[in-house]
Amino acid sequence: MIIPRVNRLTPEQEAELKAITAEFGITLRVIQGDQRTVYAMVGDETSELLINRVEGLDYIERVDTIQAPYKLMARENPLSQHTIRVGDKVLGRDLVVLAGPCTIDPKNPGLFFDTAHAVKEAGADGLRGGVWKPRTNPHSFQGDAKSLDILLEARQKVGLPVITEVMDEEQLNLAVDAGVDMLQIGARNALNYSLLREVGRKVNGKPITVLLKRGIHMGQLDEFILAGEYIVAGGNPNLILCPRGTLPTMDGYRNHPDESITPLLKAKTWAPVVVDPSHSVGKAVYVPLAALAAAAYGADGLIVETHINPKAGIGDDPKQAVTPDVLAGLIQDARRIHGQSRKYLEQITLKKSP
Amino acid sequence: MIIPRVNRLTPEQEAELKAITAEFGITLRVIQGDQRTVYAMVGDETSELLINRVEGLDYIERVDTIQAPYKLMARENPLSQHTIRVGDKVLGRDLVVLAGPCTIDPKNPGLFFDTAHAVKEAGADGLRGGVWKPRTNPHSFQGDAKSLDILLEARQKVGLPVITEVMDEEQLNLAVDAGVDMLQIGARNALNYSLLREVGRKVNGKPITVLLKRGIHMGQLDEFILAGEYIVAGGNPNLILCPRGTLPTMDGYRNHPDESITPLLKAKTWAPVVVDPSHSVGKAVYVPLAALAAAAYGADGLIVETHINPKAGIGDDPKQAVTPDVLAGLIQDARRIHGQSRKYLEQITLKKSP
Amino acid sequence: MIIPRVNRLTPEQEAELKAITAEFGITLRVIQGDQRTVYAMVGDETSELLINRVEGLDYIERVDTIQAPYKLMARENPLSQHTIRVGDKVLGRDLVVLAGPCTIDPKNPGLFFDTAHAVKEAGADGLRGGVWKPRTNPHSFQGDAKSLDILLEARQKVGLPVITEVMDEEQLNLAVDAGVDMLQIGARNALNYSLLREVGRKVNGKPITVLLKRGIHMGQLDEFILAGEYIVAGGNPNLILCPRGTLPTMDGYRNHPDESITPLLKAKTWAPVVVDPSHSVGKAVYVPLAALAAAAYGADGLIVETHINPKAGIGDDPKQAVTPDVLAGLIQDARRIHGQSRKYLEQITLKKSP
Amino acid sequence: MIIPRVNRLTPEQEAELKAITAEFGITLRVIQGDQRTVYAMVGDETSELLINRVEGLDYIERVDTIQAPYKLMARENPLSQHTIRVGDKVLGRDLVVLAGPCTIDPKNPGLFFDTAHAVKEAGADGLRGGVWKPRTNPHSFQGDAKSLDILLEARQKVGLPVITEVMDEEQLNLAVDAGVDMLQIGARNALNYSLLREVGRKVNGKPITVLLKRGIHMGQLDEFILAGEYIVAGGNPNLILCPRGTLPTMDGYRNHPDESITPLLKAKTWAPVVVDPSHSVGKAVYVPLAALAAAAYGADGLIVETHINPKAGIGDDPKQAVTPDVLAGLIQDARRIHGQSRKYLEQITLKKSP
Repeated sequence: MIIPRVNRLTPEQEAELKAITAEFGITLRVIQGDQRTVYAMVGDETSELLINRVEGLDYIERVDTIQAPYKLMARENPLSQHTIRVGDKVLGRDLVVLAGPCTIDPKNPGLFFDTAHAVKEAGADGLRGGVWKPRTNPHSFQGDAKSLDILLEARQKVGLPVITEVMDEEQLNLAVDAGVDMLQIGARNALNYSLLREVGRKVNGKPITVLLKRGIHMGQLDEFILAGEYIVAGGNPNLILCPRGTLPTMDGYRNHPDESITPLLKAKTWAPVVVDPSHSVGKAVYVPLAALAAAAYGADGLIVETHINPKAGIGDDPKQAVTPDVLAGLIQDARRIHGQSRKYLEQITLKKSP
Repeated sequence: MIIPRVNRLTPEQEAELKAITAEFGITLRVIQGDQRTVYAMVGDETSELLINRVEGLDYIERVDTIQAPYKLMARENPLSQHTIRVGDKVLGRDLVVLAGPCTIDPKNPGLFFDTAHAVKEAGADGLRGGVWKPRTNPHSFQGDAKSLDILLEARQKVGLPVITEVMDEEQLNLAVDAGVDMLQIGARNALNYSLLREVGRKVNGKPITVLLKRGIHMGQLDEFILAGEYIVAGGNPNLILCPRGTLPTMDGYRNHPDESITPLLKAKTWAPVVVDPSHSVGKAVYVPLAALAAAAYGADGLIVETHINPKAGIGDDPKQAVTPDVLAGLIQDARRIHGQSRKYLEQITLKKSP
Repeated sequence: MIIPRVNRLTPEQEAELKAITAEFGITLRVIQGDQRTVYAMVGDETSELLINRVEGLDYIERVDTIQAPYKLMARENPLSQHTIRVGDKVLGRDLVVLAGPCTIDPKNPGLFFDTAHAVKEAGADGLRGGVWKPRTNPHSFQGDAKSLDILLEARQKVGLPVITEVMDEEQLNLAVDAGVDMLQIGARNALNYSLLREVGRKVNGKPITVLLKRGIHMGQLDEFILAGEYIVAGGNPNLILCPRGTLPTMDGYRNHPDESITPLLKAKTWAPVVVDPSHSVGKAVYVPLAALAAAAYGADGLIVETHINPKAGIGDDPKQAVTPDVLAGLIQDARRIHGQSRKYLEQITLKKSP
Repeated sequence: MIIPRVNRLTPEQEAELKAITAEFGITLRVIQGDQRTVYAMVGDETSELLINRVEGLDYIERVDTIQAPYKLMARENPLSQHTIRVGDKVLGRDLVVLAGPCTIDPKNPGLFFDTAHAVKEAGADGLRGGVWKPRTNPHSFQGDAKSLDILLEARQKVGLPVITEVMDEEQLNLAVDAGVDMLQIGARNALNYSLLREVGRKVNGKPITVLLKRGIHMGQLDEFILAGEYIVAGGNPNLILCPRGTLPTMDGYRNHPDESITPLLKAKTWAPVVVDPSHSVGKAVYVPLAALAAAAYGADGLIVETHINPKAGIGDDPKQAVTPDVLAGLIQDARRIHGQSRKYLEQITLKKSP
């Protein structure tokens, strides 16, 4: 829909508008109201250049697009039939829980192995462990590739699929070549399109799932979904969207908790939603409540920072990791709530189908 | 704590600082770090004028206060022993649910009576109904005092305590003199200090409870709690805090859902928290999920727009009211979740006690 | 424009939609795209109830309105020919400056008189002085009606029109009956519709101008303009819009400076824009830069907290008031910039005319 | 400063606190207020791990750090004496203007050459031109390395230093090896620490200046400055900070204009500030006003999207590029304002020096 700044365009202006949209294969439908005339676009209206061209005209107020700019990620796409698994669990059917410490301490592998055993016993379905870490301060510890071996050794010991974050092409290649089961793209890289494209290429044809965190600034959900579209366009539809809190923080948590976007995402896309309550609230004592709320909003899973001894952690763990016994309790509670929210969620997604 | 802009103040600057704080009965403690010197204030550091005076000094960066600026609302205050009820339910023990339409239609009282019966059967503990309505557009319907009689007649018919919003002194007097059980102060008036003070005066000595909605812009929780302090300072501690979504909306709901502040409020104040999922999300189909999430975050209650026939409503109902059967279901689900979140919440509030 | 959630409505759904819009006198125009069908509304689409009714339908995604919801405030309204003055200055032609302290100290009238003289000499066109003050903390000083006499005595002494803030009906009546030249409605009351309507009634037929501050949470400019519409609807078009910073503060000032909305407001409405740099930045040393930026964005005026001895002020002055000599300098600088920005602004407003 | 959640710690808690801080070489100073005890840290309190460890303690409310976490970027650092030039202009003395189109059209080099000539004549000091483009939509045009040759050919033709954006290591190497004068790191990569570090390494020892755009989500200025610290830590202090608007947009522009942070940045760091008004407002007609406001806030320079025929542009140009004649006018106006704001800015930075 094209909204002029004035009530009626002159014939010259209307002609110019038609010429521009015609370049993009769009037919204009004139809608003459009693006060104003607006123009509907028939055809694919999602080209950024088309929108820029039309909004660049002095006499145009704005363009309101109706079509979603993503294609592959849309619920209407046949990919919505695709099943994504974590280990033997099917996302969308069972509540899936990934757990483990923020950062693997390369000097103390035992701590990670013990945590891995404990999170498995607590009921987790996957094991997280940071090898490299994005740090605000360049003078802080940035991670160590040696931790990748520790992560894979833990997988062997406990039999859980493993997930780790990669931040650049070098780390991507190391992690995929080493055989991790899942990759995490962090919130700071959610708009790093070079990396997103590279990830799409690298996981194509491989049994790897990508968990994409929401950028901390992504107010428009379409921007989040389009970031996912970058990855899926590479050819591998094993994609998970992960809300983890946004900025600005307005209330007193580390971020602004955003588990509430879960049903909005599910109304728009087929991708499973796994919520990260740990980064949302940023303090261990609030994590179980945020996890329960994520389940209440219909999340398909949780990713929870967990450490057998948080005080000994070298990343965010001392502040936001829960212990395995807390994890065990919240998994039970969250699974029960997940069952309850399911029926409300179906109302939202069913109504959307054709 | 007073933080200078420079590493060390000159003796003249330090003397000026001491003179100012001394006027407010504050003793300064000098904390000499290896790089910088900062100053701790011993005494009541919460005076706005004191802070303005000190922050007004060229050589001062900022003042960080440690004490909360509220006294009556603090968990430490003996008022935390006070019990607030809705009908025969005790807030903090049971999950309390207030329900009813956005706006009473003065031309169709039967619709309100039927809704009142239906929400009682669905399990609600109180009946909401808007008599006057704050409208963004001055040319919209603004409510009608006749609806007050309809509200009270409904109370007699169904036996539920009633709550309605007041927006100025005239409405306040009408509602209190007519004998409503609860008053709602809306989000647009949460910083209308003249009204808050007047409400405090008017309910003093009366068995009336005030539900104070969070202002849509209140990023600082202390500002919300201080608005409550205005009311309690009038002499009646029957106050409920009500998160209802904030601005800016960043995700696609009517407001930014904020049930997540519940545990933060409970760590700071004794006031019960009743969440409004209807205004948070603003669309009926998402309301049950938001209600469950509020219970998951430990809310003491819910206020849910409900209408026997939302399409016939004259306020927000056509868009955001649920029907009584949906209400009945969500009350059951929310009560179960409320039981589960309770134990996590106790961790937060227990640790705070002396 | 009505956007369904599905690509095509069923005949029953379309019939229901037509029936609803017909109730509001709206004709539906069907726009059949190659993928989706949307519906244009011909007629007045701005009724809140109409929008709620349509958005309440399960199969409707959203309603995008094209018409502005305000009528009186629109540039197209003949009121755009009306001239608003401050003293002998015409808003829109000259840069108008209002200055004076935050709060009049009722115990020290001399301080206010001296400041009044000094701001006049510095080149100000109007004198501001707070009689009553909205305070976050109920235990802070709230102002004193005695200061109203001091304000009017200062007017007599220096010959400048005076402006003060009112927060409720009682203060409104006192101030208007005493004969102030301008009224300020503060940011906390910008959505207090009862007060806005009362102000509209009270100033009708009187030579009083109302300066309406932007609510600290008003992201949507239409909400700000509609608040002005409440006042103008009373019958007196002497209205000024005043940006003064919004929340959330994201950068480190007291508020988020918002002088940048000036040209957006001017593209939509005829009301002059007077910017408050003092509350935007909240620290005296940054005020002149913010004042210059307001002039650069095309503001018609400035309202600047000024005090002959800020340290002696009892409101925000110790922190954010500039001294009269700084005021004199910034007025000169801002006037020069105002002349430069004028030609760019005309581009924006001219293009809007029919 | 360490703020406990309770008024007084137990001896065991205090001992634990002392043990943790001692591990980081911090001495604790106990500050016993009449109501609460808090703890000052003497030593380097900026370690992320230290803060996480202490905030992870149940009985601790929060840690307020006083020291800035950056070292190299601080005004106090000797690097503040370093001079950064664009061509023969010195940043901080003259207002420096970079101009040119969003995206170079590889199929139409003549358009870029003509624009290059025109911006030079308009008074620009540097030439911008996008070779690669970050695009929200993976299906949009992403740029072409051939444009790098066109950029360098334009430099030869018109004699202006050139700047282009790089988004990954491959582009970084291509651009630097080809000999561009300045690199731009875009808003989407402002937290891409792998890239920031790589840029630091690559420009070390080369006469290249890096213009770092503010991340669109960076509410905390320290996060922005620390991103710069990553680059400078590589060994080359030729760094420029570039505000370009943030999210959430609350008013109606493309982003939330943020030229107002200029004086805040200058109070904290020695880096010159070059503002991008084009992305802030996102529509050509508003760009000159935003440019003037940037000069009013004391910006050292502007980067302005300019195109000889915006409609023919293939990036953002049709919407937000100004024409060379508008550029020429705004440069003159902005230079005059820059002279006026200078004296106010010196107040802010002078007061900071030791």
